Amino acid sequence: MASSASVNTPRYLTGDKAGIREFLDKFDVFLFDCDGMCLVFSFEPGLLSALRIPQGTSEQTGTKIRSVETLELLRKNGKQVVFVTNNSTKSRADYRKKLESLQIPSTVEEIFSSSYSASIYISRILKLPENKRKVFVIGENGIEQELSSENVPFIGGTDPAYRRDIKPEDYKMIAAGDESLLDPEVGVVLVGLDFHINYFKIALAYHYIKRGAVFLATNIDSTLPNSGTLFPGAGSMSAPLIMMLGGQEPVALGKPNQAMMDSIEGKFKFDRSRAVMVGDRANTDIRFGLEGKLGGTLGVLTGVSSKQDFVEGPVRPHAYLDKLSDLLVLDS
Amino acid sequence: MASSASVNTPRYLTGDKAGIREFLDKFDVFLFDCDGMCLVFSFEPGLLSALRIPQGTSEQTGTKIRSVETLELLRKNGKQVVFVTNNSTKSRADYRKKLESLQIPSTVEEIFSSSYSASIYISRILKLPENKRKVFVIGENGIEQELSSENVPFIGGTDPAYRRDIKPEDYKMIAAGDESLLDPEVGVVLVGLDFHINYFKIALAYHYIKRGAVFLATNIDSTLPNSGTLFPGAGSMSAPLIMMLGGQEPVALGKPNQAMMDSIEGKFKFDRSRAVMVGDRANTDIRFGLEGKLGGTLGVLTGVSSKQDFVEGPVRPHAYLDKLSDLLVLDS
Repeated sequence: MASSASVNTPRYLTGDKAGIREFLDKFDVFLFDCDGMCLVFSFEPGLLSALRIPQGTSEQTGTKIRSVETLELLRKNGKQVVFVTNNSTKSRADYRKKLESLQIPSTVEEIFSSSYSASIYISRILKLPENKRKVFVIGENGIEQELSSENVPFIGGTDPAYRRDIKPEDYKMIAAGDESLLDPEVGVVLVGLDFHINYFKIALAYHYIKRGAVFLATNIDSTLPNSGTLFPGAGSMSAPLIMMLGGQEPVALGKPNQAMMDSIEGKFKFDRSRAVMVGDRANTDIRFGLEGKLGGTLGVLTGVSSKQDFVEGPVRPHAYLDKLSDLLVLDS
Repeated sequence: MASSASVNTPRYLTGDKAGIREFLDKFDVFLFDCDGMCLVFSFEPGLLSALRIPQGTSEQTGTKIRSVETLELLRKNGKQVVFVTNNSTKSRADYRKKLESLQIPSTVEEIFSSSYSASIYISRILKLPENKRKVFVIGENGIEQELSSENVPFIGGTDPAYRRDIKPEDYKMIAAGDESLLDPEVGVVLVGLDFHINYFKIALAYHYIKRGAVFLATNIDSTLPNSGTLFPGAGSMSAPLIMMLGGQEPVALGKPNQAMMDSIEGKFKFDRSRAVMVGDRANTDIRFGLEGKLGGTLGVLTGVSSKQDFVEGPVRPHAYLDKLSDLLVLDS
């Protein structure tokens, strides 16, 4: 078997001051996974346990302060910080506010979300005919804001006109391709997490795709972590369409799909060999960095993947830490 | 390769009076596929073209009259007729009315629907603990009526309390297993076609299954024919759950699943070797009859499958006709 980072033994950096210095010196750009309520910036090691720390405990406060210090350390050393999230319901501006509420300082320009990634993909990479530039959105306001920021016209989304039951006359009108229901300018169906998913939207999306629209998804996470358990994720919104289309999958713009990495590179113009992906999940975050051929990947044990996952699993980071703030040893 | 009906050359019976007589004499029970607006009883051969005949044309009227005559011929000769449908949104009583509107005479007792099949499966086959007998329904009134007819308690379904958006407090309450949202007596999740599917219902169904409820589906048809085209089917309602559950499939009670054949046999107490399945789709109807080891299968060319499908496809009926009313040659 060929030697590759994914099957090597990752280096354990916690407490290894020289190792940390050597590792950090190799990178100019730090991509941080920021899903699952930013487990990367959590303190308590262990599977999802961090999510159960009540707001405002001293443990959590300590975590956030240390996270802020860690980010400051990186910025002080001239590193570019990028927050990468598959959350499509929020715009980058919304997300910055959310990070602020978690006491993680950031700027809008540092945030890269799957809805932004999708918008860039549609506006700059897809070559759509002049009369097929409109997007039919299944999703929330975050997608709409990002499409607007790229001047991409759209319908659907949060428009109340689509938050209704299907009516008997809709079947015939859709079958006939009535333009009051099926806008002939729609050339893309973009599916993200939609808390208002309904039968009518699924039916319209199916017919747009059957009529030739490109099938995109902000991301394909089947579940969404919330309150220490799981809820339907963006991938579950695409599932009915995939089944109706006989297995046709959408082009997904979130991690670990490389369309997202291409978009990030397109925006930040960095040298991939000088970038590192930091995350808590081997099969999404670490895989995202490895398949993107970044110079490095750094696992943290404050989220989903365990030490065993990182050290013995099929997808392994170059290095790993108990927690992100272990990097602060450089400051001591 | 072993000789079996599914790979033999099916017998073409149209115009073959002696062959038809011989074929019909072998069977006492005729199971008719009755989906896709009863394509079996349509006149015009060819893929779905029958669906496009406008209501009330002389062609359609002619079709229905001939269908009625065909059913009368069978009944006159002492044959048991059973209408089998995967449509879960209607009860058997509703379905009888629908058949009547299509000028097809029937009785409630002759109708066997996937919601009735599911109700029988839950009440008579599943061995549920005393305190886990309640069903959480994703579906319409047809399922509710059939569950009631078998005295199976249920929640969800058409209850307006479930036709709402998810609220911020729901996440924490669901995570905590709050009994006002997650009824501890629910031991089954039954998913059928639901024109009011929403995020809240999917989230609840997922949590019931994760807490141990049996995952059932009335049927797994991904699409629903209407107005000559396709809309989301019952299978598409299960798709988000299957994805969230990492690929766990529901036990499906509709064709071609044999749980439905077992239910039909349980009700009509017939000799399978003296029964024939009549349908227009090789991969559902004909497969249903073959896997159920019925004495015969009869394809009709008035629906989805073509002559080539029946004669050269992987699943082949014992015999086939251009149209069902070709049986009337016996009356001439």
